Amino acid sequence: MGQSMSQLSVMPVVSPLPQPFLLFLGDTTEASYAKTAFGLRDWAPERCVAEYASEGATITTGLRFLTPAQAVAEGARALVIGVANSGGFIPDAWIPALLEALHAGLDLISGMHTRLADVPPLEAAAARHGRRLIDIRQSPPDIPVATGRKRSGKRLLTVGTDCALGKKYTALALTRAFTARGIAADFRATGQTGILIAGQGIPIDAVLADFAAGAAEMLSPDAPNEHWDVIEGQGSLSHPAYAGVSLALLHGSQPDAVVICHQPGRDFIVGHPEYALPSIEETIELALRLGRRTNSSIRCAGVSLNTAHLDADSARRLLAGESERLGFPVADPMRGGDAFERLVEASIS
Amino acid sequence: MGQSMSQLSVMPVVSPLPQPFLLFLGDTTEASYAKTAFGLRDWAPERCVAEYASEGATITTGLRFLTPAQAVAEGARALVIGVANSGGFIPDAWIPALLEALHAGLDLISGMHTRLADVPPLEAAAARHGRRLIDIRQSPPDIPVATGRKRSGKRLLTVGTDCALGKKYTALALTRAFTARGIAADFRATGQTGILIAGQGIPIDAVLADFAAGAAEMLSPDAPNEHWDVIEGQGSLSHPAYAGVSLALLHGSQPDAVVICHQPGRDFIVGHPEYALPSIEETIELALRLGRRTNSSIRCAGVSLNTAHLDADSARRLLAGESERLGFPVADPMRGGDAFERLVEASIS
Repeated sequence: MGQSMSQLSVMPVVSPLPQPFLLFLGDTTEASYAKTAFGLRDWAPERCVAEYASEGATITTGLRFLTPAQAVAEGARALVIGVANSGGFIPDAWIPALLEALHAGLDLISGMHTRLADVPPLEAAAARHGRRLIDIRQSPPDIPVATGRKRSGKRLLTVGTDCALGKKYTALALTRAFTARGIAADFRATGQTGILIAGQGIPIDAVLADFAAGAAEMLSPDAPNEHWDVIEGQGSLSHPAYAGVSLALLHGSQPDAVVICHQPGRDFIVGHPEYALPSIEETIELALRLGRRTNSSIRCAGVSLNTAHLDADSARRLLAGESERLGFPVADPMRGGDAFERLVEASIS
Repeated sequence: MGQSMSQLSVMPVVSPLPQPFLLFLGDTTEASYAKTAFGLRDWAPERCVAEYASEGATITTGLRFLTPAQAVAEGARALVIGVANSGGFIPDAWIPALLEALHAGLDLISGMHTRLADVPPLEAAAARHGRRLIDIRQSPPDIPVATGRKRSGKRLLTVGTDCALGKKYTALALTRAFTARGIAADFRATGQTGILIAGQGIPIDAVLADFAAGAAEMLSPDAPNEHWDVIEGQGSLSHPAYAGVSLALLHGSQPDAVVICHQPGRDFIVGHPEYALPSIEETIELALRLGRRTNSSIRCAGVSLNTAHLDADSARRLLAGESERLGFPVADPMRGGDAFERLVEASIS
């Protein structure tokens, strides 16, 4: 973990972001709401100067705490909203800190559904100070309808049994493992945190439904034959709200390999307790069946398990047991080891 | 055919449209581009005063030709753009006729991707004359993420092997057949022509991908137990560009019954000659497998074949043969007969 993705060549889907960042934690008390801040800390540490928060926040990334003025003095160029809340909006409690950042000379970067410029005090302060308000969860214009044309180069897509269980970390760890093996590879971001880590990408869930597969095609264009795009999955093919997004991403990505991401012990779709989580085997079978439509040679390279809730011994036993049971390499992006090398081997062989 | 849907109770997803209509055919020479005009003529004739066209048009709906001023004198309140073109934009050749309509006192209604108000001369003329520019292919605001909660009432969804082969006509004919049998039923429109026919609906392909299943849930809300919503399908679960839209619609619709729509003799996905059309059997199996996720009692009620390219005898033989081969009722929305009654019977029994 903690190795930067910034050395990877990238596609300018969004214009370059001002950096390095001051990570803003709002007034958040729930670690699960701080995915963006933790993701940046783990995968782009050289672009994270410090963290900042409003009164009441109890979580921390472990980075030092600097005010916006102090962060600017240390080179920060933008404050990133590193937390979400269930409504996806910007609460009043955050406004003073965001105004302070604009006043200190920082641009603002947000991955929330609410646009920064739609918050009148932020809009006014940004205009007054000549600062940029950057919403990365906005679809780029002029995305074409998917053609289905087979593209050159190789692709791997992480496919989940549910949301929020490690598809992005798995894709990042796989990109690092490809690169470590001397294979040219790009991480392709499809969500706001991934886009901040990679510096570009397309927020696939914010694209008009008709164009979602086209966005996936645009995200991983023709490439040299031996090059791998490692594409961040979204949602789950079995999710009652997001399966359509997942299928559009699968079809448009035309993956040669999928890696199935799962959190052991999770029995139900998060937020939908009446929906049982699909099994790993069922998810493999469904991904291959549906993915075959745009890439007849699709196969499963292995499995990634999020064992953050287990101790090291239990996790090791589980990974070994699941690998034996399923007949695939099984890795955990949070624990290292050589399993990611075996996933790469299974992808390219 | 030709029976109005306007007697059906409807949900005010879009505000009431000004009507009756003058159908505008542009300068179109390809009948396949005039789906909207033909759909309105066939399903909402009492709301169609006449047709109008620019120089060069060679197609006709068979309605009489009136200028905008003549149509206003006969009660028309809006000109509907009844044709599309491959880019979904409004060509310069149409502008004089559209300006003439605004000047004569008609509002404009469009189902194209280009917004009418984004065409400067139309925007200026509408402001000057106090006329409305209505874009029905715009997503309503505040669509929620799908919950997956099972809703009361019954639902039928038309599911296609491809685009543009009769899903809307089939849903309209089924709604009529339910109503004729004394069963309360609503046609639920998901595309621009359907929305014009029904007077409301949601253009599912113009919703942000994250909310597409939520839009489908919103479109067919809780209803009395014996009530049927008959939902217009979109795309195909096997379409390389639109399968995500189709899956979101399937999951959000939670259909109790699906009717598979197909055009005999079509071998490839339109516009994607490298993609073979899935078979009817494969489409049934895939729809049931994926649809089971949000409605475990989903089943196939039968098949609808578009035999417009066949003579009456060949069509009759084909419908009978396919019904025998597949073991389901097989109907054609363009040919009448009692097959739709049998589809209703298969849905409710």
